[in-house]
Amino acid sequence: MNYRMISKLLAVVLQFVTIFMVPALTISIMNGETAAVYGFLITMAVMLVLSLLPRLYKLKRQTMYARDGYVLVTLTWLLISLLGALPFWISGAIPNYVDCFFEVVSGFTTTGASILTDVEAMPKGLLYWRSFSHWLGGMGVLVFLLAITRFTEGAGDGMHIMRAESPGPQVSKLVPHTFRSAQILYLIYIGLTVVQAILLLAGGMDFFEAICIAFGTAGTGGFGVRNDSLASYTPYIQWVVTVFMALFGVNFGVYYLVLLRSFRKAFRNEELWMYLGIMLTASAIIFLNILPSMPGRPADAIRHSCFQVASIMTTTGYGTADFNLWPQLSRSILVMLMLVGASAGSTGGGIKVSRVLILVKCLFREIHRMLHPNTVRQIHMDGEPVPREAIRNAYAFLTVYCLITVGSMLLVSLDNFSFETNLTAVFACLNNIGPGLDQVGPTSNFSAYSNFSKIVLSVDMLLGRLEIFPIIITCMPSVWKRARV
Amino acid sequence: MNYRMISKLLAVVLQFVTIFMVPALTISIMNGETAAVYGFLITMAVMLVLSLLPRLYKLKRQTMYARDGYVLVTLTWLLISLLGALPFWISGAIPNYVDCFFEVVSGFTTTGASILTDVEAMPKGLLYWRSFSHWLGGMGVLVFLLAITRFTEGAGDGMHIMRAESPGPQVSKLVPHTFRSAQILYLIYIGLTVVQAILLLAGGMDFFEAICIAFGTAGTGGFGVRNDSLASYTPYIQWVVTVFMALFGVNFGVYYLVLLRSFRKAFRNEELWMYLGIMLTASAIIFLNILPSMPGRPADAIRHSCFQVASIMTTTGYGTADFNLWPQLSRSILVMLMLVGASAGSTGGGIKVSRVLILVKCLFREIHRMLHPNTVRQIHMDGEPVPREAIRNAYAFLTVYCLITVGSMLLVSLDNFSFETNLTAVFACLNNIGPGLDQVGPTSNFSAYSNFSKIVLSVDMLLGRLEIFPIIITCMPSVWKRARV
Repeated sequence: MNYRMISKLLAVVLQFVTIFMVPALTISIMNGETAAVYGFLITMAVMLVLSLLPRLYKLKRQTMYARDGYVLVTLTWLLISLLGALPFWISGAIPNYVDCFFEVVSGFTTTGASILTDVEAMPKGLLYWRSFSHWLGGMGVLVFLLAITRFTEGAGDGMHIMRAESPGPQVSKLVPHTFRSAQILYLIYIGLTVVQAILLLAGGMDFFEAICIAFGTAGTGGFGVRNDSLASYTPYIQWVVTVFMALFGVNFGVYYLVLLRSFRKAFRNEELWMYLGIMLTASAIIFLNILPSMPGRPADAIRHSCFQVASIMTTTGYGTADFNLWPQLSRSILVMLMLVGASAGSTGGGIKVSRVLILVKCLFREIHRMLHPNTVRQIHMDGEPVPREAIRNAYAFLTVYCLITVGSMLLVSLDNFSFETNLTAVFACLNNIGPGLDQVGPTSNFSAYSNFSKIVLSVDMLLGRLEIFPIIITCMPSVWKRARV
Repeated sequence: MNYRMISKLLAVVLQFVTIFMVPALTISIMNGETAAVYGFLITMAVMLVLSLLPRLYKLKRQTMYARDGYVLVTLTWLLISLLGALPFWISGAIPNYVDCFFEVVSGFTTTGASILTDVEAMPKGLLYWRSFSHWLGGMGVLVFLLAITRFTEGAGDGMHIMRAESPGPQVSKLVPHTFRSAQILYLIYIGLTVVQAILLLAGGMDFFEAICIAFGTAGTGGFGVRNDSLASYTPYIQWVVTVFMALFGVNFGVYYLVLLRSFRKAFRNEELWMYLGIMLTASAIIFLNILPSMPGRPADAIRHSCFQVASIMTTTGYGTADFNLWPQLSRSILVMLMLVGASAGSTGGGIKVSRVLILVKCLFREIHRMLHPNTVRQIHMDGEPVPREAIRNAYAFLTVYCLITVGSMLLVSLDNFSFETNLTAVFACLNNIGPGLDQVGPTSNFSAYSNFSKIVLSVDMLLGRLEIFPIIITCMPSVWKRARV
């Protein structure tokens, strides 16, 4: 293990996070939130000091292996969460440090699950920091780290980091590998965020809220600034958010191809069509299912169904209605959407549409093989053969995903909440969504869970965001042992 | 498709089922249950007539392909369920035919899910038939069909049927292929059933009940003869049933090897140790979890925890306690056991321990590959390499299993019962267990579901019992189309 390189890269991350904290600090200063100002200042000082420590020694080797990449990514997320939680704790806004950690992990992993019972009572600087953590996390440390590795001397081309963090199985094909294209992705991300913020402002939203909601949408996060999430905004604003949630759940490679004017290639993307297909079908069924409970208000019914489907499927987690009270069919569809998640190469979480697509294609191939044992069929996606590695990875992912769900469920059930609460809490965290059902439904929060459960759920959020394997590998003793030899 | 051969084999099955109905008829006659007697007589007449129809034509070909085997198995189960339900319907004991079908599918698939609200009010002949259907189904049409194909002229060696029906991924290795060894398996099955019945009689159980409970245990079914399942029996009887449930969940290949005195080979069976390990661990945790609610009664707590774990993990479904009221940790563990299920090559259902073992081993291999991309590692089980086909099958099974769970869940949720009810109802049926949680908990039943949901759940039971793929293949239009060309 190249400890020195890893620690130097972590130091760079910390410097960036320190800079990114300045706007939040400014907002707190402008609003006279003294406690929060202290919180930010002390945290920034701690981060700066920590980031200077690796200057005490020089790099021995510049090479980084796969395991270094996995460990780096895991440690990055852990470190920025542990430190990013400090302002909440120091300011006293959230007295329990585990709660602060949960909240910030939820931010950086773009989950949006909260332990806050009264969002509106929070200092504005902290609310901004909370929403901004979505935006930072949303792009994924993918581009984030890919970009900053360039600032350090010779950290390779970020490929190992990329592999550790690519949000989904297909990313290697569509999301490009070079620094240049990382910049382009960044620009798309920023561009879409700005457009959304402008459209929200045009709808009469206040500047602070527009920025926060846009951050939460772009990162498919879900932290709001009001206690009722997005329920009290105008239909126009809710529709704008619906559309942008859906847009941020699309594989960014598609936008990239559109920018390159490769329209044919862009629209040959099978995942895109399946993603849109699932979204529209689910919205239609839920619309029909909730319509009887909203007699004479079809416009409301269609707005709520589209909003909630986009919100859950893209793993954002904003709410305009308490879907916890909806009929079981709608609730079950939403839980199903939680599992599927957004597209690979988007800011969303979940199993990912393309992975589901690969698994279903493999299933059909297997059935075909049972009937015709001597034939060999290659699986194709977007007109190209799917590499074996991607298939194996999808299978391994499904297995470990099921195991983690079951394991977390057992640990969390020690708190003795309802089965539905526990299961959907794990789904909501592992898939980086935010709200679940029952006691963790859209009008409730995660505050009732014990510290132990909150830590389990925080780990689930990190596992989900980092596509599980980097964290598992980091936890394997052999990875650390071999390094010492 | 060799329609003639399939119909001739189905006719033989019907003749066997007709004969197997005689004891049930006798019991009804002895107890003066006139309606049930008519029910049995008419059903037997119908089955005999149907079984004579294929005599009208001669076989053209003797060959049977894989698809013929899959279709035959699916049709067999469907036909015996459709006809086996007639006595309940004709006698008027269960007025709704869909209910009768559900109950008998539940019997033949060894599920044990019931729509009866008052078991004790049923005619004894019908109760016997219900329990006996477990016993018939329990051995699996595997040996059943394997045996009867010998009675027909030249139906091949039953290999295709075997493949369609082997209860789990590993069967090809341990369960032997010839008629001779099928006989041995049959003898083990009958032998264990007889020993259990004798032990139950020794505990003072009445003859009729001892037979029925032994049938339900052997088939890992779960239909009882009292309204409170096994709660009102003595601890001795409950312990006997616990032990025999655990025994019937073991891979029968292990017993086969023990009979052959290949002890070393028998105890090298990894699945056996994992099966026992999970069972003991789960029992211990549940014991500690429920102990506080039973102060001063550790003996009861340990009996209930062992009984329920054995009952759920072997997918039997008998109950001595209302685990629906247990703490969430215990409930969640039981749901987890529902998914894992019993051993391959046993009469139990579920995903199967060996399949879980293969999936976990593949997962570790995949993680190893991520760290060392250029190494190749073969997966071993019981000291032998696992064939690729078994791995692919396990993966495909996991995928289709998840898809069916989600799909059934959505369909069943139309009835608007709770999320927990719907999810565990699907688990209970797909894994051939019987009771679930909440409204389908051990003290309730499935009667509240609509006819539509009952049919969905019946299909789930059949899918679970036949390891999913034969039914999917039978439903593929291409299988039928190609036959006509």
